[in-house]
Amino acid sequence: MGNIIQYGSILVALLAFAFAAWLYLWVKRQPCENRKILKATDLIRAGARTFLRKEYLVLARFAGVAAVLIFVFLPKPVWQGSALHNVWMVVAYVFGTGFSAVAGKIGLEVATIANGRAAEAARQGIKPSFMAGFRGGAVMGMAVVGASLLGVTIVYLATKDPTTVLGFSFGASSLALFAKAGGGIFTKTADISADLVGKVELGIPEDDPRNPAVIADNVGDNVGDVAGMGADLFDSNVASMAAALVMAGALGGNHVDMVFTFAALGLLASIIGVMTARIGKHGNPTRALNASTYVTTTVYVVLTAAATYLFHYAWRIWGACIVGLAVGVIIGLSTDYFTDDSKKPVHFVAHASASGPAFTILSGISYGLLSVLPAMVGIGVAAFTAYKLCAPLAPDPSQTVQYALFGISMAAVGMLSIVGMIVSNDAYGPIVDNARGLAEMGDLGDEVLGITDQLDCAGNTVKAVTKGFAIAAAGLTVIALLGAFMSEVNTAAAELGVAGITNFDIMNPMVFFGLLVGAAIPVVFSAMLMLGVDRNAQRMVAEIHRQFKEIVGLREGHPGVEPEYDKCIEIATTGALKELIPAGLMAILATFVVGFIGGVSAIGGFLCGNIVSGLLFALFMSNSGGL
Amino acid sequence: MGNIIQYGSILVALLAFAFAAWLYLWVKRQPCENRKILKATDLIRAGARTFLRKEYLVLARFAGVAAVLIFVFLPKPVWQGSALHNVWMVVAYVFGTGFSAVAGKIGLEVATIANGRAAEAARQGIKPSFMAGFRGGAVMGMAVVGASLLGVTIVYLATKDPTTVLGFSFGASSLALFAKAGGGIFTKTADISADLVGKVELGIPEDDPRNPAVIADNVGDNVGDVAGMGADLFDSNVASMAAALVMAGALGGNHVDMVFTFAALGLLASIIGVMTARIGKHGNPTRALNASTYVTTTVYVVLTAAATYLFHYAWRIWGACIVGLAVGVIIGLSTDYFTDDSKKPVHFVAHASASGPAFTILSGISYGLLSVLPAMVGIGVAAFTAYKLCAPLAPDPSQTVQYALFGISMAAVGMLSIVGMIVSNDAYGPIVDNARGLAEMGDLGDEVLGITDQLDCAGNTVKAVTKGFAIAAAGLTVIALLGAFMSEVNTAAAELGVAGITNFDIMNPMVFFGLLVGAAIPVVFSAMLMLGVDRNAQRMVAEIHRQFKEIVGLREGHPGVEPEYDKCIEIATTGALKELIPAGLMAILATFVVGFIGGVSAIGGFLCGNIVSGLLFALFMSNSGGL
Repeated sequence: MGNIIQYGSILVALLAFAFAAWLYLWVKRQPCENRKILKATDLIRAGARTFLRKEYLVLARFAGVAAVLIFVFLPKPVWQGSALHNVWMVVAYVFGTGFSAVAGKIGLEVATIANGRAAEAARQGIKPSFMAGFRGGAVMGMAVVGASLLGVTIVYLATKDPTTVLGFSFGASSLALFAKAGGGIFTKTADISADLVGKVELGIPEDDPRNPAVIADNVGDNVGDVAGMGADLFDSNVASMAAALVMAGALGGNHVDMVFTFAALGLLASIIGVMTARIGKHGNPTRALNASTYVTTTVYVVLTAAATYLFHYAWRIWGACIVGLAVGVIIGLSTDYFTDDSKKPVHFVAHASASGPAFTILSGISYGLLSVLPAMVGIGVAAFTAYKLCAPLAPDPSQTVQYALFGISMAAVGMLSIVGMIVSNDAYGPIVDNARGLAEMGDLGDEVLGITDQLDCAGNTVKAVTKGFAIAAAGLTVIALLGAFMSEVNTAAAELGVAGITNFDIMNPMVFFGLLVGAAIPVVFSAMLMLGVDRNAQRMVAEIHRQFKEIVGLREGHPGVEPEYDKCIEIATTGALKELIPAGLMAILATFVVGFIGGVSAIGGFLCGNIVSGLLFALFMSNSGGL
Repeated sequence: MGNIIQYGSILVALLAFAFAAWLYLWVKRQPCENRKILKATDLIRAGARTFLRKEYLVLARFAGVAAVLIFVFLPKPVWQGSALHNVWMVVAYVFGTGFSAVAGKIGLEVATIANGRAAEAARQGIKPSFMAGFRGGAVMGMAVVGASLLGVTIVYLATKDPTTVLGFSFGASSLALFAKAGGGIFTKTADISADLVGKVELGIPEDDPRNPAVIADNVGDNVGDVAGMGADLFDSNVASMAAALVMAGALGGNHVDMVFTFAALGLLASIIGVMTARIGKHGNPTRALNASTYVTTTVYVVLTAAATYLFHYAWRIWGACIVGLAVGVIIGLSTDYFTDDSKKPVHFVAHASASGPAFTILSGISYGLLSVLPAMVGIGVAAFTAYKLCAPLAPDPSQTVQYALFGISMAAVGMLSIVGMIVSNDAYGPIVDNARGLAEMGDLGDEVLGITDQLDCAGNTVKAVTKGFAIAAAGLTVIALLGAFMSEVNTAAAELGVAGITNFDIMNPMVFFGLLVGAAIPVVFSAMLMLGVDRNAQRMVAEIHRQFKEIVGLREGHPGVEPEYDKCIEIATTGALKELIPAGLMAILATFVVGFIGGVSAIGGFLCGNIVSGLLFALFMSNSGGL
């Protein structure tokens, strides 16, 4: 079919951008007149912009070094006469960081407009406030998925080479590393410090404007939870497509078209899902968010079935894709079980807490540990089922593993198909969280606070679900990437005329060595970031104490007396970027060292170790935190 | 050399028993006259005996079922005409549980005698008190290692079949599961409850005799930390020998003799190490414990080198063994770094705690996460080096992996060689911990308390080190067992005339499925145990509250008024056994389910997942706890 499918994908991506623009203008049209809120949103936006600018600057330097290394070494050393190919890799890499950065920037800009709109709209009731929050978040969802689909398609059309798409994916990963980890340090620093001095020490409300860290806290929600989460899911989405394309390219046939079709239909389904999101006048926001997710899922199943029928794709691969989607939804629901306050785990922990804080920690951690089971088994079953479904498609036995791995990568594509909806729901959370804070700062009264509280609560519940989903999707994607890695190694080996690798055998001590070290790295990475937050929060707590001590009338809330918000933002920004670098370097260097010592086999084990421990600790931490 | 080496091993084991008997008599000879202490030790001993009896009864039922299953199915289904072999497996299995149980019982009896002796001896100064505590612990060390060497040797001599030794090892594992998990629930229930109501709520000292849970707490130290830890290291020690024997049997030559020689020399080195343990009149107990560990290590290196020279063993295998030992020591030292109060991590956490308890948890968990790195890398390097050292020994390339795996199993044997010393140090901890409590209950005065505090502190530091060592040794052992598993599968396949397995390939979705589920199981197992502790502790806290409320004069400490200690012991005992069963069943059933779904490949992945997540979480939890 020539490139029709790819042009269709571009069309869908542009449709998503147009829809995002429409949503943006709708949000912008909503009234926002309260001067205190306007002033606070200006401060938040300025803080977020400053952070993003500084973060992108650090990233640019990193990407510059990476680009040079890519030019010299990837996909083949440049002295082996592959200069043009290497240049394409660099271009794709830079594109990957750039597209992701732009999507993050768009999301952030809208989020910092939507938060104030949602706060003011709450005066008219829950319905307009919900819509402002949700549509603000949906801009991010559309921008992220539109940009990822557009980027992958352009790179593929320009080069017809899946390996180059991996370069684009690597760019997205670089940005995600910085955005997620840097934004994470920022938001947690501000969050902990603001709560600790405000709520715990002084007993003032959560978003009290006297608290010098309150604006930094709101900035954090935006740079960490909006831009960071967006970059993360941009990365997963691109990676799932890239992995599927690498394997589809190796198989030939209409498999490449299938990847694009299914990815584009996922975005289309998300657009429809977002359009149908509605809440009654006294409606339940959690139900509204979940309902549109289910709409998206159903539409996706129907559309992909139709496409499979129309374009004569293999039904078994469609099955693998739907299994991935179903497992994603199930994992989301299981996360909900562990974090929803109407379910047993939260009740148990609340009950245990009556015997003292030791029991809160003990039972909270226990349920967090328990919660890893459904997701681990779910991902395992998804991989297993996709394998069983797709292995019989192989025309000859030597291709069984290839087809099976393609099936797994399509399960990942399926799980990520509704990512547009997921990002929308996810960005909704920090927007209404901010709206709640702004309502308090703007003195909008208890009734409005009640409404924003309700919206915020829905945001927290949905957030836990989308986080579980994001972790599972990342896990399955990385499994697919592992397949792509082996496929790439074998292609390279064939070109060099040496023997490729047929497996990563656990009994091979090289693989095992890589596996053990690889399992340690995500844990150590988390530890370094947490220690970074710790150090940074101590600096900020000291600054908050200083302000309450030195600024006369601040604690008492004398009119006209204001804290120096920018000092706290400055501490969070500088600290986040400073603390991020050692952790990032450690992760990258560890990979090189392991590869240098143990070669390709050790790297295979290393990646596998990353997956296992990354999944375990991500699920444990995210769910016990949510709980 | 016929069976000379094996007879020599038996001789060394008997020597260890004789030495243990001498130590036991020495401890028994120490004076113990304080009536309050005598009464308390009687209570502790009675409580520990009751728990052990009940635990062994539950275990006996479990072992009965397991024995029937083994008879029917292992090593081959009985209807395939292997009845005699299967009977031997059952006998070995029962032997394994029995030997471990007896060693645990001996250790416990001595520990509950030594605690009171150590308390009273503290009136004469630190030296006699240290000796009473250390020699009491050394009885356990000698009994555990003597019994494991004796058992393995007898089973091997009787059957000449390494597979049957695996049956012995399985018996040891069954007991370890119950002793470690059941004892663990008991000790943590009592520990948390006693501290929470006593120290935190009422502000009374840690071992105040008014606290109804104080005796249960001391019983817990003995059943959890003495008997449980002993069973655990008995299990690891036997498993390392069994794995090495399976692989040595497959290789032929003098490799079997080498395993026995090296294991026996390890015990001999430990005997010498224990004999040399001395402390000056005002000496430092930590230094004394470490010094004897170094003596053991040095003696072992020299003895094994001499044996290798004398018996013409391969120097490369000796090298693998020594690498294992060296890595074990390094891991122990790194654990020390993370848990010693003179080192940076403890200082950082203490400093961070000044900003509030949130920072204690945050930084404590962070350092706990960080602490996994040295051990994971260390075990990886040990496996890798052992492979590199031993692979060249293979007479033809098809045996490379076999030799490499034998090297790894010998690294595990090397790491566990000093286990006699480790168990001695480890059992010293709860004995002097108890001594501290008894000194308080016996009103021995502040000077004596100061001395027991010093001894207890050394116990805590050394405990963290030995725990790190135990985890690392278990990890390396299980890697060796994985090799034994593959070797057994291939032997069985060859007998059935079907194709064996040559690898556990991560890219095989069966293996991957097993890997993910396997990684979840240790985490879920821990969670279930922790929730069990949580439920149990809530019951005990309620009981303590009841006693303080209903027993007139208890809180005020009126003379003659005593709490009902036995009620708390009863709660801990019943609860521990009740909470243990679901977790144990889950772990066992999960293995069967995975094997049923995915066959041998999935089980291989499953075991590998167990290793990775078991290591990660064991290191994380143990080190952050120690910190």
